[in-house]
Amino acid sequence: MTFVGFTGAGLDRADNLRLDPDRIAGLMASGDARLLGLDGTDPLLDAEGGLIWSGLADERADLLFLGLDEGTPLFAPLVRMQQLGQRAWSIFRLLALMSPKDAAIWGAVRSLNEWHNRHLFCGICGTATEPYRAGWGRRCPGCGAEHFPRVDPVVIMLAEYEGRVLLARQPQYPAGRYSALAGFVEPGESIEEAVARELMEEAGVVVGDVRYVASQPWPFPGSLMMACLASAESDAIRLDTNELEDAIWVDRDGIAAALAGRADAPFQAPPPYAIAHTLLARWMESKE
Amino acid sequence: MTFVGFTGAGLDRADNLRLDPDRIAGLMASGDARLLGLDGTDPLLDAEGGLIWSGLADERADLLFLGLDEGTPLFAPLVRMQQLGQRAWSIFRLLALMSPKDAAIWGAVRSLNEWHNRHLFCGICGTATEPYRAGWGRRCPGCGAEHFPRVDPVVIMLAEYEGRVLLARQPQYPAGRYSALAGFVEPGESIEEAVARELMEEAGVVVGDVRYVASQPWPFPGSLMMACLASAESDAIRLDTNELEDAIWVDRDGIAAALAGRADAPFQAPPPYAIAHTLLARWMESKE
Repeated sequence: MTFVGFTGAGLDRADNLRLDPDRIAGLMASGDARLLGLDGTDPLLDAEGGLIWSGLADERADLLFLGLDEGTPLFAPLVRMQQLGQRAWSIFRLLALMSPKDAAIWGAVRSLNEWHNRHLFCGICGTATEPYRAGWGRRCPGCGAEHFPRVDPVVIMLAEYEGRVLLARQPQYPAGRYSALAGFVEPGESIEEAVARELMEEAGVVVGDVRYVASQPWPFPGSLMMACLASAESDAIRLDTNELEDAIWVDRDGIAAALAGRADAPFQAPPPYAIAHTLLARWMESKE
Repeated sequence: MTFVGFTGAGLDRADNLRLDPDRIAGLMASGDARLLGLDGTDPLLDAEGGLIWSGLADERADLLFLGLDEGTPLFAPLVRMQQLGQRAWSIFRLLALMSPKDAAIWGAVRSLNEWHNRHLFCGICGTATEPYRAGWGRRCPGCGAEHFPRVDPVVIMLAEYEGRVLLARQPQYPAGRYSALAGFVEPGESIEEAVARELMEEAGVVVGDVRYVASQPWPFPGSLMMACLASAESDAIRLDTNELEDAIWVDRDGIAAALAGRADAPFQAPPPYAIAHTLLARWMESKE
């Protein structure tokens, strides 16, 4: 299997414990529990690039229960964030040092913290909400509504036409970087319809068949990325210049060069923990 | 292609118009626009089971722009809902009368209205929000945050073992009904990881390979259902009786009888507009 970033945490999320505050308190006080070290919401890493876990010997209300790692209960801080939806590019340097498992665990913590900070008040009645379910929900003391951490589905896709795939660049990308087109799934559409709509809106490309390839959670701030391939009916491009700076069709040799990081590649590939990288790798593995 | 409920609206959502209030107002006043008839959030149907559209000859602030239907601008009311997350079973009788296209259009309207009613206040600062982008967003005059209509990803799946698939029933199902297991995707997991976790949590079933099959938007209140098949490692079941009343393994003959609505079927199949129905039909079409 091709590597898929931010997957493979391998924890037993033990959701049955979330609704049992006494058992969560017991785990915290047991001496077995471990607490994730964070700098704001960024990971603290040891000399080998590993997450840092400290002991936890007392009950605390402001923690998130991540689950059991081969029986060891893992917790992380709930952090009040000053800026939402922001990330420094430096986080990608840290991710490059981390194991897939550590990146997946930290990604869940990052995403959950952002969710909590975006749901401090009830959207239905405006009352301040309170965390519960060991960090896996917030409830409203005003109207009684329960709010649960969810993620926003995003489609990310390669249109294919006669042995080439469509890549594009956004103005804020690093120099030379091109990636797959992407967009949020809206109410009232399937994944397949969202793929077709986004390719039409952003590049004027009409597609027929859409095939799902892989998915990943993306913690900036909290998306579910769903990677697809789509068969284009022509290679004509009509660029939405509000969204994209450029779009190009690239053949297999060009994709191979970019994935290998070669200097003669026609573009700079997205980093390995981005599912666009996985999608390009899977397309290369597929038969001609 | 197998039928997938709530897909096939076939509208050009024309998202470029959403940010242009003058053009939206112009469309409303043009005499071409059509306004969807609703009874609360339920559809009003004509004698043939079709949605009812009335003329619209004036600018109105409380409407949602659905898109262009072969050039005709379609709008729907934004409705203040007293009860959220509720639906009468009678809605399924109406859906059975409706065309796939009408069901898909109405489903988007239902889902968007529920989203608006759940985001009347800003989750970040508690200020009352205002709709904008022709109904495709709400903004906060307090902190400036923008909120966009999203959907909650849900996995729904059949575990397969030696020619049989796993079905379960929840206590609130109609008598005899069994369906695929399902659950929300959480932060920090892929679709494939969510499928494996849900099958383990609810039925104690361990799965290996997970394959995506199809997706649909589900408007009660606003999910993106993603249907998958998963290969089970055994047929032993350990039922989570907090979630499920019963679970059974059913072979191809049993599924065929249920999809055909035969009296001797071992269970009553989910209705055609539910993706569980599509998933069962696709599994029957797949090779042995």
